[in-house]
Amino acid sequence: MNVKTVLVLLVLALATIFALVCVLLTRGRAPSPCQHQPPAQEDTGDGQSLVFADLTPEEMVQVVRYLQGHLGVQLVDASRAKPSDSCIASVDVQVPAKAEVLQFLDKGGARPPREALAVLYFGNQPDPNVTEYVVGPLPTPAYHRDVTVQKYGGKVPYHRRHVTGKEYMDINALIQRELRKARRFLAACCESDGTDLAILTTAPRGFKSGDRTTWFVLFHNVAGTGYYLSPVGLEVLVEHGDLHVSQWQLRKVFYNGQYFPSTGDLENAFVANMLEVVRIKKPLAEVVLGSMRPRRPPGSMGPLQYEPLGPRYSVRDNHVTFQGWSITFGMSPNSGPRLFDIRFRGERIIYELSLQEALALYGSNCPGGMSTRYLDGSFGIGRFAYELVRGLDCPYTATYMDQHYLAESETPKTNQNSLCIFEHDAALPLRRHFSDSQSLYYGGLRKNTLVIRAISTLINYDYIWDFMFHSSGAVEVRVHATGYISSSFFYGQGTDYGNRVGPHTLGTMHLHHMHYKVDLDVDGQLNSVETQDMSYELVKDPWSMQNTMERLYLRRERLEREDEAAFPLQAPLPRYLSFTSPKPNKWGHPRSYRLQITSSAGEHLPASSSMERAISWGRYQLAVTRRKEEEPTSTSIYNQNDPWTPTVAFADFINNETITNEDLVAWVSVGFLHIPHAEDVPNTVTVGNGVGFFLRPYNYFDEDPSVDSPDSIYFSEAQDVGACGTNQLACPPPSCAPHLPRFRYGGFLNLSLAPPPNGL
Amino acid sequence: MNVKTVLVLLVLALATIFALVCVLLTRGRAPSPCQHQPPAQEDTGDGQSLVFADLTPEEMVQVVRYLQGHLGVQLVDASRAKPSDSCIASVDVQVPAKAEVLQFLDKGGARPPREALAVLYFGNQPDPNVTEYVVGPLPTPAYHRDVTVQKYGGKVPYHRRHVTGKEYMDINALIQRELRKARRFLAACCESDGTDLAILTTAPRGFKSGDRTTWFVLFHNVAGTGYYLSPVGLEVLVEHGDLHVSQWQLRKVFYNGQYFPSTGDLENAFVANMLEVVRIKKPLAEVVLGSMRPRRPPGSMGPLQYEPLGPRYSVRDNHVTFQGWSITFGMSPNSGPRLFDIRFRGERIIYELSLQEALALYGSNCPGGMSTRYLDGSFGIGRFAYELVRGLDCPYTATYMDQHYLAESETPKTNQNSLCIFEHDAALPLRRHFSDSQSLYYGGLRKNTLVIRAISTLINYDYIWDFMFHSSGAVEVRVHATGYISSSFFYGQGTDYGNRVGPHTLGTMHLHHMHYKVDLDVDGQLNSVETQDMSYELVKDPWSMQNTMERLYLRRERLEREDEAAFPLQAPLPRYLSFTSPKPNKWGHPRSYRLQITSSAGEHLPASSSMERAISWGRYQLAVTRRKEEEPTSTSIYNQNDPWTPTVAFADFINNETITNEDLVAWVSVGFLHIPHAEDVPNTVTVGNGVGFFLRPYNYFDEDPSVDSPDSIYFSEAQDVGACGTNQLACPPPSCAPHLPRFRYGGFLNLSLAPPPNGL
Repeated sequence: MNVKTVLVLLVLALATIFALVCVLLTRGRAPSPCQHQPPAQEDTGDGQSLVFADLTPEEMVQVVRYLQGHLGVQLVDASRAKPSDSCIASVDVQVPAKAEVLQFLDKGGARPPREALAVLYFGNQPDPNVTEYVVGPLPTPAYHRDVTVQKYGGKVPYHRRHVTGKEYMDINALIQRELRKARRFLAACCESDGTDLAILTTAPRGFKSGDRTTWFVLFHNVAGTGYYLSPVGLEVLVEHGDLHVSQWQLRKVFYNGQYFPSTGDLENAFVANMLEVVRIKKPLAEVVLGSMRPRRPPGSMGPLQYEPLGPRYSVRDNHVTFQGWSITFGMSPNSGPRLFDIRFRGERIIYELSLQEALALYGSNCPGGMSTRYLDGSFGIGRFAYELVRGLDCPYTATYMDQHYLAESETPKTNQNSLCIFEHDAALPLRRHFSDSQSLYYGGLRKNTLVIRAISTLINYDYIWDFMFHSSGAVEVRVHATGYISSSFFYGQGTDYGNRVGPHTLGTMHLHHMHYKVDLDVDGQLNSVETQDMSYELVKDPWSMQNTMERLYLRRERLEREDEAAFPLQAPLPRYLSFTSPKPNKWGHPRSYRLQITSSAGEHLPASSSMERAISWGRYQLAVTRRKEEEPTSTSIYNQNDPWTPTVAFADFINNETITNEDLVAWVSVGFLHIPHAEDVPNTVTVGNGVGFFLRPYNYFDEDPSVDSPDSIYFSEAQDVGACGTNQLACPPPSCAPHLPRFRYGGFLNLSLAPPPNGL
Repeated sequence: MNVKTVLVLLVLALATIFALVCVLLTRGRAPSPCQHQPPAQEDTGDGQSLVFADLTPEEMVQVVRYLQGHLGVQLVDASRAKPSDSCIASVDVQVPAKAEVLQFLDKGGARPPREALAVLYFGNQPDPNVTEYVVGPLPTPAYHRDVTVQKYGGKVPYHRRHVTGKEYMDINALIQRELRKARRFLAACCESDGTDLAILTTAPRGFKSGDRTTWFVLFHNVAGTGYYLSPVGLEVLVEHGDLHVSQWQLRKVFYNGQYFPSTGDLENAFVANMLEVVRIKKPLAEVVLGSMRPRRPPGSMGPLQYEPLGPRYSVRDNHVTFQGWSITFGMSPNSGPRLFDIRFRGERIIYELSLQEALALYGSNCPGGMSTRYLDGSFGIGRFAYELVRGLDCPYTATYMDQHYLAESETPKTNQNSLCIFEHDAALPLRRHFSDSQSLYYGGLRKNTLVIRAISTLINYDYIWDFMFHSSGAVEVRVHATGYISSSFFYGQGTDYGNRVGPHTLGTMHLHHMHYKVDLDVDGQLNSVETQDMSYELVKDPWSMQNTMERLYLRRERLEREDEAAFPLQAPLPRYLSFTSPKPNKWGHPRSYRLQITSSAGEHLPASSSMERAISWGRYQLAVTRRKEEEPTSTSIYNQNDPWTPTVAFADFINNETITNEDLVAWVSVGFLHIPHAEDVPNTVTVGNGVGFFLRPYNYFDEDPSVDSPDSIYFSEAQDVGACGTNQLACPPPSCAPHLPRFRYGGFLNLSLAPPPNGL
């Protein structure tokens, strides 16, 4: 072999190497069918939705600085403030008035000035009180306006303020001091010196306006597991209303069915052998009731949803668009998720859809349990909407958004990734028909839904807030309860109040009630309410008049006044209730949206209760009122600690005004009775524990808008069902492996910077 | 460069080529992480489930051969049989008695003989009647037993038989003959000669026992679209009860609000210009009301669910297992899906869970509409469960099973791929808790559900039957209605009976009612019924006795007798109702399953109606009866055509027997009122149109069984949340592209071999 031949071979070899390397390198680079496609640009990006936007951290900082400089009082950071100090309790956006917003959105009016609502606790004043200021304009505030009297008809007494983390810490110190007086008892009952017990607040705090006397329930605290399931039988009543912490007192002690004036008395009874002690071992983390640690090694991976060509919705700022839908979203630190300006195909259907309140009301034979009526809005439904876990709380490929709030601090806090948005394949047809007669064909559409979700952890419970948008033009609102149940120490006739779920644990019965505001604007602001239901009429058959038949017919009714449209909880709702526009659809029916509620709420409280007016929204599964700027919410964060003189009493909204051709709000309450059972340990499951409502087009369109969906499927006998051109289902999906980002979770890091949450 | 160097370089180059080729070749071949893993073997494969199996086509053939040879009468194939002939109407499996089955399944008893139930129409007899035979043993029958009198307490009169395809064809011919007498009218009203109109049956057929006089409604028939939306205003009443087709008669004609004795009279009125004719153009396929043809080109592909490592459930014969669940499934040609021997973790919970009936009851001002009370079980809920469309009716990767039936023919028919099974990711936590206090951790589990689904097309409507099995031990039963609405011609006061949804179309209001049999065996056959609900008691606060409080407490009650456990439709159900075993769980509560119903059914019929007893199951949202072998079903296929003397009247099952510690059946009815609106065109959407019930463990276990799921997630602050070893979510999913089979659909081919369906 001569050099030339060898050289030629070498050149050929090098060329081959080059070719092979090219093949290898371009394999990944080739114009891939898997490239994510940007969603069809539906978002005009004009920033209109920002008129509803939550405050940015920068805006919060500006407001805090402004308040510090312009109120002329000394403000202590709320995380350190004593009751006798003054502090900024919270700063949230002040959403502009609807008229102003609509002028801006619909009529080319000026963008309303951007304002904040600041809540101040003025403890360091001769007349301590809570004051609310509107501060504006952002980003550089120049004015503040005390709106307290305008909003509430008077000053807000200081005792109505919520209990801050600092106040809980001071109470904790008091309880710890008192527990030291019962050392021998604690060692016997609980293998404890008191310092390792978890202390859980209850609410409300007394029996009359001005009371601030709270039962606290003590639990064995096991790291990594919900202590809520391990009550030791000990509860203490603490009076903490005085401005001076030194004046606070422990007022009563409960143990295993008996009451004592003090921990000292408890200790004495124990020492004197006059006490029936239930000795509970300190639980071990591995075997404690309610542990969620996996007991089996992970198995094979389950079904996974992915988006072969990327998401089909588009998120910009506080705004998401998807297949004709356009939604503005936000989060109130107190009342939780709030949506605005919900449009479908360019038409506004809902101006505001927002959670108002979540009530959890308990029964028990222990004092803490029997007293508990949590109004979660005053704890902070939005503030405690923590980071969502990718792949479990929401699909792995969902879009995750940060939320910011300022509460009990002068520094903004962030809940990273605490709101998720995704398109979900419900694995159900939205519609379908198979034709077996006259002509053979098949048509249908998958039920693909845009979901907006947040999950709030309120002490033991986790509420999953879902807002869903269907291609039929329907909105679905749903809440599931999960997380740990609350419990009482099991003794005596405990099972009159729940089921025993552990050796010493009574799962205490309770009601969940949630309240929503739905400000519908169906084809314009002016709407009416119409109901429809069925009856039978006994008639002669029209063709022979010789036989009788029971003929089904429709009863249509228009509700003229607020009182007619306030439906008590236990009375049956008309089967159809819709919000109608004066304008007809193509077939002559008023363009309407129907409200359909799925709930089994129990009685919220007897009307005779001295605190019932504070939750009087719970009287009604549905109440329709005229929309008023002065009735923005159905409750107040101050109702929790003074339910006897409610700052906002929803029942007052219903005063028999006419509701025909008016701007209307539907106030919807949903809920259920929960009697915990063994299977609520470790956590309540979402199966069967979901309630909610639908808003469905009802003669709003001329036909189902989903016919226009590009996902529609149709094939007939005549066509080749397997041909990709005519039947999209037959098109081979691009063979793309799902591209998933690395798993990350910062929820804990986040938290270690935050003030102590609502427990202790 | 010398040869040696060049040679060395060449060798190196060749080695490189070799290496590169190896890399290229092995890229595809490497032991792939994407290989489907066989599911953990849960199915013992002992064939026990076959004791419930539907008949195989071979078994059907054997039964037909046996009947042809052993009845001593001449049998005509039902697809050709005249009313005066005798024929085999249907052959289905005769499920053995429960005692026998349990002896076999639980106590090692002998396998019960396999038997069939054959329904014979004896028209060619002096006393025409319907006779039911049990034929066995299969596969080679040797005996037949007339069970008619034993089952129904007497012979079944011939007039109760359902209307076969052949009978519909003969009626069609009669109507076509009669229409020829109104040619000018038809040309004017409908641009038709009558032959191109679709004719739809109604039911029942008269006013008293023995009547067989049916209103038929005429529609413009547009190939490829549901004709149900295009009534032309013409309806005809046909008497077809005589054994001799020649004696059948057209009894009445309805057009646009007026009645005529005959088509001739209608024509005369038209010719005399005495008739108000609504001239309707023949619709064009492209623009007709209700077309489902896509209007937009397909868009980007939506989210897709796939199983990276293959299905985690396992199907063998008529049996599926999944994460502790074991379910036997089948399909009754008449009453639809039926499940047997549902076990979780080895323990039977439900012996039988089966659909019984679906009622659709209409109101209208047209005679056909106002008369219609369809009992779909007599048409064939199972028989018309057609092939499912992959990727729309069920997820693309679901498992599809064939179902076989023998009806109106001597040859078995197959509905290919007509039942699907899949694991669904609900994109919702089954349970989760984020701990923000005391210790920071997160635990949860995805809601992955095993779904068994079939979809029945009953003329215009499509019912989606779902049975779902959750890892919490809960069973969920759900039905959605979709497909085309039924309609009447719009005239006069039509909107008293529905909404106008097209130029001449009234979407007629109707009730959907479905009835289910749930034979629960909760920890053994002997169960009782317990209810729990809430009340408030006014008490002094136990710690000071100075204030009053409304205390929530539990009312527990045991229902002793059938009458107490029969809950009328409109009365509120107790919020908790459970089926209890005498045996307690670890915490002392009776092991129970709770029944939770989601329904808004309207009154099925006034009790005064002469046909109410035929659907008296509709009186009760829930009725609990002692299980009896003589009360296998709540209705009968003969009830449709003689509802005035019901062959089975469910109300008779409720006779106040004691129901404590007995083998019990829960009979559940669910439904809703449907007032069609513009958005029901083209098809009713499933959003908001689903009802059903849950069976949930209630102190059945000692804790939530899902804690044992290998899918459980738990991580704490202390651990590295991103570490795959401790947190399964952090494990990168295998980068496997979904491997989807080619799209196929044989539903139409199938059908062209089948007898004409229930319409005409």
